[in-house]
Amino acid sequence: MARYSKEQLDRLNENSLYEAMGIRLLRIENGEARSELRPPPDLCWPFEGQPHGGVLFTQMDTTMATAVMTANEQHADNCATINLDIQYTRPARGAVFICDVWTTHATGRTAFARSEIRDESGDLVAAAQGTFRLVRKKST
Amino acid sequence: MARYSKEQLDRLNENSLYEAMGIRLLRIENGEARSELRPPPDLCWPFEGQPHGGVLFTQMDTTMATAVMTANEQHADNCATINLDIQYTRPARGAVFICDVWTTHATGRTAFARSEIRDESGDLVAAAQGTFRLVRKKST
Amino acid sequence: MARYSKEQLDRLNENSLYEAMGIRLLRIENGEARSELRPPPDLCWPFEGQPHGGVLFTQMDTTMATAVMTANEQHADNCATINLDIQYTRPARGAVFICDVWTTHATGRTAFARSEIRDESGDLVAAAQGTFRLVRKKST
Amino acid sequence: MARYSKEQLDRLNENSLYEAMGIRLLRIENGEARSELRPPPDLCWPFEGQPHGGVLFTQMDTTMATAVMTANEQHADNCATINLDIQYTRPARGAVFICDVWTTHATGRTAFARSEIRDESGDLVAAAQGTFRLVRKKST
Repeated sequence: MARYSKEQLDRLNENSLYEAMGIRLLRIENGEARSELRPPPDLCWPFEGQPHGGVLFTQMDTTMATAVMTANEQHADNCATINLDIQYTRPARGAVFICDVWTTHATGRTAFARSEIRDESGDLVAAAQGTFRLVRKKST
Repeated sequence: MARYSKEQLDRLNENSLYEAMGIRLLRIENGEARSELRPPPDLCWPFEGQPHGGVLFTQMDTTMATAVMTANEQHADNCATINLDIQYTRPARGAVFICDVWTTHATGRTAFARSEIRDESGDLVAAAQGTFRLVRKKST
Repeated sequence: MARYSKEQLDRLNENSLYEAMGIRLLRIENGEARSELRPPPDLCWPFEGQPHGGVLFTQMDTTMATAVMTANEQHADNCATINLDIQYTRPARGAVFICDVWTTHATGRTAFARSEIRDESGDLVAAAQGTFRLVRKKST
Repeated sequence: MARYSKEQLDRLNENSLYEAMGIRLLRIENGEARSELRPPPDLCWPFEGQPHGGVLFTQMDTTMATAVMTANEQHADNCATINLDIQYTRPARGAVFICDVWTTHATGRTAFARSEIRDESGDLVAAAQGTFRLVRKKST
């Protein structure tokens, strides 16, 4: 129920932001989500072969927002980031990065989540926690 | 001395990341910096006319990194973001966003800064504070 | 109107937490506030003469909460911290610390603020930004 | 080796800060740690029966600092908090709170950790991530 089908994921992944950044959501289910990042070369600056920290942040933020929208039984219609704290633990080298998200607490209006990005060796390159405002059309 | 000339700014602004994101540094001086963002339409998603939060983050992160490198008398050669906390205070609507950065404390190896992004009306759309590691070639 | 009188400050300062920690609010007005900390020796650990980071955090959190409650025309009845990010920029040495808070944005339900703590020389020892939920009795 | 014995824990727990706050470390081992908080009534303000957020923060900060000092093979001699981001997910009600810490990455000089505090029902009341500077006497 709160799990995206392959068709829903495909539809969600077809947007100009994800295409420009190389982001693709792989799984969204019950407050958790996973995405992959294949950073295009022009966003790997100032270090060749390393996506800018802002690209990793964008992957995390959008994966977290997608996850928290499915945390409650009644799926949220929209979501706004209130606050996000990101740590860069290691230089991000490689062609693919996997981002995982776990919702840690959600009420009807506010959700908290944490996230990790790992490189192809499974090493942590970034960790984050964020707070999100859930929006439902009915309540607007 | 710790102030970028117009030529230095122009050279710095010629990179693929800033071009893709619509970022341009306007001033870098003694631990402070200012940049503008003119977000391209493909990065305005999921809301038309509003840059994704990751684009605002990228503007902040790169402007902060640039600022802290000039905080000490001996200009740093490089800089890595350790941690950045961002708050989104208001929907970011408009064609131009101005980011200002102030270094709040810097030692030889670590720098702290805060930052604000405002829209064309001068309203705050994002606030951040971050910690950075300063790198000098000599000490490497 | 949104400014605490001396009597109101005195009454607010008479509580067991502030007494245990050595916190005293000096000014609360239109979304801004100032407090002083005179840390008792038992809370200066592990370094003699330096209040634990948790004591500085408590001073900031409570001063920020007090400030944001007066940010709107209609004073909030209560306030809960959603998130607080604190940076420790310098060892906190001395007998008195001054904390200043500025509300950066407030809607009816959510407020954002930033804060600084300085030692007797005026040097920054901690910087923070936080998000708060404003509660009004009427709307509950 | 990087695990505290009962004697070491007892000795560490005998300090004025922990006594004033009701904090006790239960386990410290290989970058992980657990503590309990039994908040004294005078620190439960403004809500009776609920420790102030600053007390929860102090429990987290000190448990995290203790954990990261054992993350590397060569135990650090000291540790300073650079930055800590805390989320309050739920009102903290009860007589005992358990804090768990996991080091997520550690180099010789810098460590990253995350932490959770749960109430007696196992519900999350606070989540945090922090960055720490590790100090070794030799390198000073």
